[in-house]
Amino acid sequence: MNAPVEENLKPVKCVGMETVVIAPDLTIEHVLQARERINPYIHNTPILTSTYLNEQIGAELFFKCENFQKAGAFKVRGACNSVFGLTDEDTVYGVATHSSGNHALSLSYAAGRRGIPCHVVMPKTAPQAKKDAVLGYGGLITECEPSTSSREAVFAEIQEKTGAEFVHPYNDPRVIAGQATCSAEMLESVEGLDTIVAPIGGGGMISGTCLTVSNQAPQIEVFAAEPLQADDAARSFRSGRIIADDAPVTIADGLKVPLKENTWHFVSHYVADVLTATEEEIIDAMRLTWQRLKIVMEPSCAVPLAVILKNQDVFRGRRIGVVVTGGNVDLDRLPWMK
Amino acid sequence: MNAPVEENLKPVKCVGMETVVIAPDLTIEHVLQARERINPYIHNTPILTSTYLNEQIGAELFFKCENFQKAGAFKVRGACNSVFGLTDEDTVYGVATHSSGNHALSLSYAAGRRGIPCHVVMPKTAPQAKKDAVLGYGGLITECEPSTSSREAVFAEIQEKTGAEFVHPYNDPRVIAGQATCSAEMLESVEGLDTIVAPIGGGGMISGTCLTVSNQAPQIEVFAAEPLQADDAARSFRSGRIIADDAPVTIADGLKVPLKENTWHFVSHYVADVLTATEEEIIDAMRLTWQRLKIVMEPSCAVPLAVILKNQDVFRGRRIGVVVTGGNVDLDRLPWMK
Repeated sequence: MNAPVEENLKPVKCVGMETVVIAPDLTIEHVLQARERINPYIHNTPILTSTYLNEQIGAELFFKCENFQKAGAFKVRGACNSVFGLTDEDTVYGVATHSSGNHALSLSYAAGRRGIPCHVVMPKTAPQAKKDAVLGYGGLITECEPSTSSREAVFAEIQEKTGAEFVHPYNDPRVIAGQATCSAEMLESVEGLDTIVAPIGGGGMISGTCLTVSNQAPQIEVFAAEPLQADDAARSFRSGRIIADDAPVTIADGLKVPLKENTWHFVSHYVADVLTATEEEIIDAMRLTWQRLKIVMEPSCAVPLAVILKNQDVFRGRRIGVVVTGGNVDLDRLPWMK
Repeated sequence: MNAPVEENLKPVKCVGMETVVIAPDLTIEHVLQARERINPYIHNTPILTSTYLNEQIGAELFFKCENFQKAGAFKVRGACNSVFGLTDEDTVYGVATHSSGNHALSLSYAAGRRGIPCHVVMPKTAPQAKKDAVLGYGGLITECEPSTSSREAVFAEIQEKTGAEFVHPYNDPRVIAGQATCSAEMLESVEGLDTIVAPIGGGGMISGTCLTVSNQAPQIEVFAAEPLQADDAARSFRSGRIIADDAPVTIADGLKVPLKENTWHFVSHYVADVLTATEEEIIDAMRLTWQRLKIVMEPSCAVPLAVILKNQDVFRGRRIGVVVTGGNVDLDRLPWMK
């Protein structure tokens, strides 16, 4: 689909990629730079397959296991690209962000590796496992209410107080270029992919995927998978403009945030479709993955498999890369335990 | 330690390794044959590491993830080596076994791939996930009481009725040679290992590990890890003869069976020590692995990490291969859920 020209894109400070200020200026060169920059701090994660799931669906699925990633999620890619792209001068007051969890702990990890402070605003309702991990990496947490408006208000205070460099969890070209390294690895590991399915919250992973794929393998269709109960990206996609919900409720706690200008650019230009799944479908797919792939992953990661199972007519016969975005789940509160 | 000569070793029918009838006759050639034979039916499983765990313990741990193996456990190696080593004539009545779970479903998988029937005797108390998996692979289940004596009695009936070829879960040189392929892969994947720790139940994995290591890397020390509540191998090791308990109770349901002559040969000649862990230590190590490695694994697989955490003086500074034996766990009955 063709989207209207983004009128609201504002320049973002992008040290280390001086010519880039907005998403449309990102090129494959920025992805290659990001790979080199973050390589010492991340894993090239393994890809797992399941004969059982392939037979059930009639397709070939390749699960890119970012749950095995450093800090437990793909977000460490964008966080490292941002933190290690800063000049020494820019790091004096540390970095700061707001995040439902994985970006918070990824930025804490990256800042810790660079030896600078990291301030994070997290919703009170974030899983305890994620809060503990942030603290474990030395991050400094300030809590907010579980809504976008509260999160942004509390963050503004923190940033003013500390003067820290803001690294947005997804609406930042440095972060998008970092996330793009994940699909770059997939293209090297799996030959002949024709489809990639990834979860969509704010759109950082999907945007990075589109950035890589549109440059390196434009024949691949990119599908975004979203909880029906937080379907702002699906509604945005269909209406041709960003629709933001303030506080959606879904078990997929990583996918509650709305699109922003930089990610909307990629969603509107490159995504084949945004498909949704109910809470029950997400839980069933999560359980199925634990059972069959033997991996611990977050509810958010189950949304791609849920939409594939639900739309088998779309996906049958395809060779599909599935991004398993993270594994930071609260083991005491698994969603199938009553 | 030196053990008494095994006087009770009886010849086992070993088609495909005609000259081998008892464990001491096994050579590295049988391991190489097994690798070639089973290669089309198994995965060379990945090895995962955790910086966090390494720092906690002061050692380097390399987790060989047999929970990602076909049929969800290392036992598929021995099962495939046995089933695909049979002549067509020997397969007429199918194969049969008794097993607490993973050997049952591994043999069902192997038999299914060869297109022959598989009869399995399983304890009533085996996890439902394992029973379902056996049925899913086409295995035919007969239930017994959860004791070694009941299991063997019921099995004798089944074998007489069907005439199927018996593939013992561990006391069979074909099976031991198959399990030995796991450490052969580890030696290729990780340089400079000085230690391997694996769980011990009947001793099939430990025996296979000793077979490979004593031939290919004799400098490596092999430690067996056992639940304190099923510590027959530890007591056997210390007393120099097989001690068998009839029905031990432990959460590590794969490790309840006693040593037999063929595995005793390896345990008594090659194992450095048999270390034990309490139920609580096993559960803590299991939870820690799920949290940090993001993998779904059985309680049995947590015993090695539990003994490493408990004996840090023994393991500090070492480069340790840890065998994660399987991932067939009942997700509705996780041991840390009250």
